[in-house]
Amino acid sequence: MKLSELIQGLEVTIQGDANCIIKGVSTIQEAEPNRIAFLMNPAYRKFLATTKASAVILTEAEAKNCPVTAVITSNPYYVYAKIAAYFDNHPKTLAGIHPTVVIGKDCKVSPTASVGPHCVLGDGVTLGDHVVLGAGCVIGEYTEIGDQTRLDANVTLYHRIKVGKRVLILSGAVIGSDGFGLAKSKGSWHRVPQLGTVILEDDVEVGANTTIDRGAIDNTVISKGVKLDNQIQIGHNVYIGENTAIAGCVGIAGSSTIGKNCMMGGGSGMAGHVTLGDNVVVTGMTGVTKSLLEPGVYSGFPPVPNAEWRKTQARISRLKQLTDRIKALEAILEGEKNI
Amino acid sequence: MKLSELIQGLEVTIQGDANCIIKGVSTIQEAEPNRIAFLMNPAYRKFLATTKASAVILTEAEAKNCPVTAVITSNPYYVYAKIAAYFDNHPKTLAGIHPTVVIGKDCKVSPTASVGPHCVLGDGVTLGDHVVLGAGCVIGEYTEIGDQTRLDANVTLYHRIKVGKRVLILSGAVIGSDGFGLAKSKGSWHRVPQLGTVILEDDVEVGANTTIDRGAIDNTVISKGVKLDNQIQIGHNVYIGENTAIAGCVGIAGSSTIGKNCMMGGGSGMAGHVTLGDNVVVTGMTGVTKSLLEPGVYSGFPPVPNAEWRKTQARISRLKQLTDRIKALEAILEGEKNI
Amino acid sequence: MKLSELIQGLEVTIQGDANCIIKGVSTIQEAEPNRIAFLMNPAYRKFLATTKASAVILTEAEAKNCPVTAVITSNPYYVYAKIAAYFDNHPKTLAGIHPTVVIGKDCKVSPTASVGPHCVLGDGVTLGDHVVLGAGCVIGEYTEIGDQTRLDANVTLYHRIKVGKRVLILSGAVIGSDGFGLAKSKGSWHRVPQLGTVILEDDVEVGANTTIDRGAIDNTVISKGVKLDNQIQIGHNVYIGENTAIAGCVGIAGSSTIGKNCMMGGGSGMAGHVTLGDNVVVTGMTGVTKSLLEPGVYSGFPPVPNAEWRKTQARISRLKQLTDRIKALEAILEGEKNI
Repeated sequence: MKLSELIQGLEVTIQGDANCIIKGVSTIQEAEPNRIAFLMNPAYRKFLATTKASAVILTEAEAKNCPVTAVITSNPYYVYAKIAAYFDNHPKTLAGIHPTVVIGKDCKVSPTASVGPHCVLGDGVTLGDHVVLGAGCVIGEYTEIGDQTRLDANVTLYHRIKVGKRVLILSGAVIGSDGFGLAKSKGSWHRVPQLGTVILEDDVEVGANTTIDRGAIDNTVISKGVKLDNQIQIGHNVYIGENTAIAGCVGIAGSSTIGKNCMMGGGSGMAGHVTLGDNVVVTGMTGVTKSLLEPGVYSGFPPVPNAEWRKTQARISRLKQLTDRIKALEAILEGEKNI
Repeated sequence: MKLSELIQGLEVTIQGDANCIIKGVSTIQEAEPNRIAFLMNPAYRKFLATTKASAVILTEAEAKNCPVTAVITSNPYYVYAKIAAYFDNHPKTLAGIHPTVVIGKDCKVSPTASVGPHCVLGDGVTLGDHVVLGAGCVIGEYTEIGDQTRLDANVTLYHRIKVGKRVLILSGAVIGSDGFGLAKSKGSWHRVPQLGTVILEDDVEVGANTTIDRGAIDNTVISKGVKLDNQIQIGHNVYIGENTAIAGCVGIAGSSTIGKNCMMGGGSGMAGHVTLGDNVVVTGMTGVTKSLLEPGVYSGFPPVPNAEWRKTQARISRLKQLTDRIKALEAILEGEKNI
Repeated sequence: MKLSELIQGLEVTIQGDANCIIKGVSTIQEAEPNRIAFLMNPAYRKFLATTKASAVILTEAEAKNCPVTAVITSNPYYVYAKIAAYFDNHPKTLAGIHPTVVIGKDCKVSPTASVGPHCVLGDGVTLGDHVVLGAGCVIGEYTEIGDQTRLDANVTLYHRIKVGKRVLILSGAVIGSDGFGLAKSKGSWHRVPQLGTVILEDDVEVGANTTIDRGAIDNTVISKGVKLDNQIQIGHNVYIGENTAIAGCVGIAGSSTIGKNCMMGGGSGMAGHVTLGDNVVVTGMTGVTKSLLEPGVYSGFPPVPNAEWRKTQARISRLKQLTDRIKALEAILEGEKNI
């Protein structure tokens, strides 16, 4: 394709040959001719002068050093994402229900939906326009899935879940399993019925093998635009605000609340019944044991502002010196005593 | 339903109208009329005076402040669990084997069992009375499942697993996969055959996407009444004692032993070949690197009694002050020297 | 079987009766007659004198105290692994494609491959000789699986994945899901197309419910002989070198590189864009936030050499004493001032 076609609708300026032919994307350091690359991370700036790419997406500040055609934008990674979509080789699906699918009563399946082999739909399931279900998905009774939502193979949705539009759920994810609600009586645990459901609003993404429990009384809510990576566990009655992004292997205990535009690093965890305010960032492997309401970056267990955590880590690494200084003081005073 | 019907068989006292109509459950703060709520956590006591619920389950101490019908018990959460069960909307299943199921030779399936679409049963599988298998479950050869056990959709049980009665396994769980046994020879790893199995005793619960490996020589054993949350990993030859409860995202390495009535918080981990005694509580994100035999609450990495851990965390947060005090002492002594 | 048959091809010396009958394996402490056990961990040496096993696999140093037939080798665990394989009771599979399998166009399935019930193969899938797919596996378009590779039930492979020979993938694993690539524009996240794939080289093992994301531009590569336990998350564009072993619940963020012959303990994590050199060992629950290029054992968060980490932990546990020593010094100087 011509570069000029790829950039249609994007807010970019071309420096160089807008008609160059682009056959695919590449990293800036390994690009061959007719590839387009992007430059965002300064660590890769050193590869710009010698890149073999036919075009590079970059900021105005970098463009003056670009030896090939430059696609200039304030947000190179976003422009890259839009251009890369032209070269996506994900399998295309055809509308229709595979003959091996088992469908319950009173389902409403859009004629433009695609339901893969061996899927199972319970009674009363609704699938919107252009919904795609990969092979082996199981959709519980009365669950509703909005337009253009895609479930990859082997996803499990329990009963009465509400999934918005343009949602993406990767393989192995489980949505709507019973929360971990247990009441102890006479030395043994008794299950507490989990009567709420899960609501995934529009544009939510759920990673592979991620699990989201249904609410105990009210619902578990994942708001519009939330992005969840793989292997995340979300407990019952959790609320996550719009456009929050959570990396892999995070666990969120029940009844916790996370604000809008938050980010949680990989392997971090959050206790139950606590709150993150809007715009809070929690770094990887942090243990959130208490509410963090002010915007900012937090680390540690229990969490403190990241700058403070870094200082504390540095102090811990200097404990030997601290001990040595005390020893020196003790020696001086011991010496004084002996004089 | 009338309240008097809901409480049949429960050890409770009614203060107010035993004939009030209850149509569902609710939280105390958001209840509408004809709902029943419960009060257990003191943080929610402030909502009691203004609740719109028709009845509230609470302790005798709280009952005097209850403006509506009170269901008085020493264990409100347990009584709530029993009453909430009347309003459970989990799909009902019919006995029988779906025509898409693939069954091996010599299986014994109770006529009251329900086997969902696209399940696969290996040779010699036994399913007890009222067993329910959700869609897409795969049950390995010679695995036995006891009466009234329920597997949700897309559960995988390997061969020769023994599952007790009234066990509940949520979607995506994998039971009986080969343990991580590797022997190194000439620089590369060789798989050690895993010849044991997994035993899930009666009343065990296994969360979504939780994995339990089969034993290497002996078995992996999950005792009666153990409750496992989602995304837990249990290594080969682990033994877990009765009524222990483990929260999400916990990893237990091989050949470790956990006593009765223990609790492990979310994201905690346990090294191999170590032991937790009975009644040990490990808080969230704790790393159990050594045996903890005495009952108590433990935290940290390596773990210490929780009270000690809290003090240590407080001391770490005061490291700056400690350093400042040393500096002050040094300054005094430096001053003395100069005199 | 006779012991002499079991040891064929192994570099061992027999002390005692090479013709003794072995009917199975056991632990050294619980063995009954006609069982073979092994002794590797010194903690179990105390059971040797009284073992009822008919033969024990052990080193020359231990053999002099062996009261029964000794199988002498420098690597008892490896020899045990080879002998135990004779007693493996994993189900045998028959070549052929189950009639419930759904196969796309232009697939190349070896006549010696075994494809279990309800599997789904996309267009252009290749399965080598003696490949075994358990029930319910979904294999994406143009994915290639090498000879003698085994996938257990309910494994999901996305499109265009390359799997080598003798690879083992346990149930619930997901290979080739889209990486967590997001570009922010005007306050919301936009998905970055993930155009690379995943390459699993020969002799790789992947545990139950482990997830491996496909590359964003280049590929995610798991080299020959790498062993991954359960519930691991591998981000996009990660490279793992030959014969590295990673324990359960580990998370590796995108674009990180791990060398050859490394080991990562359970629950450890690794940030994105960092590197582990060859022969690096990271202990359990370590958080790798920076590159560790020199061989050695590392612990902590951020990681330091294990010996240093242990000393620091000891110093932290002595913080009270440190504070007390400062107090004592302050008291002395305060006393001096008052004189």
